[in-house]
Amino acid sequence: MVVAEIRIELKQGVADPEGQNTKKALELLGFKGIKNVKSIKVFDIELDADAAEAKKAGEEMCRKLLANPVIQKFSVQIK
Amino acid sequence: MVVAEIRIELKQGVADPEGQNTKKALELLGFKGIKNVKSIKVFDIELDADAAEAKKAGEEMCRKLLANPVIQKFSVQIK
Repeated sequence: MVVAEIRIELKQGVADPEGQNTKKALELLGFKGIKNVKSIKVFDIELDADAAEAKKAGEEMCRKLLANPVIQKFSVQIK
Repeated sequence: MVVAEIRIELKQGVADPEGQNTKKALELLGFKGIKNVKSIKVFDIELDADAAEAKKAGEEMCRKLLANPVIQKFSVQIK
């Protein structure tokens, strides 16, 4: 049993309104020195497979369902 | 300049409908052996601070805005 950590983030240059609004809200609360906030989605998928199979399955899941290849990139890490 | 990676996930025992629906959708697409899917939110916050300050600020941000302590737990990692 392994856990595939799938990390989906926006590609460079794609607007991140959630991140920008979070940055604004943090600044309104008085936090200083924030240069950028990036919002990222992670799925921890527990799989009954070995590490190599899990990595392959995780990448396939991103391509078929989890990520939008037009604006997002993904990475799969096995834990 | 450091990046504080803030990871916000549901506490043990709290229902995760996003994760459960993702699991169902993946199974409908034919993926086998999925035991569990956990949905997690991550913010990468670029801060003009040293590592110790950034960790403290990140935890404060979670307490004040980013996390809901009733159902979520958070961790801050400096990269």
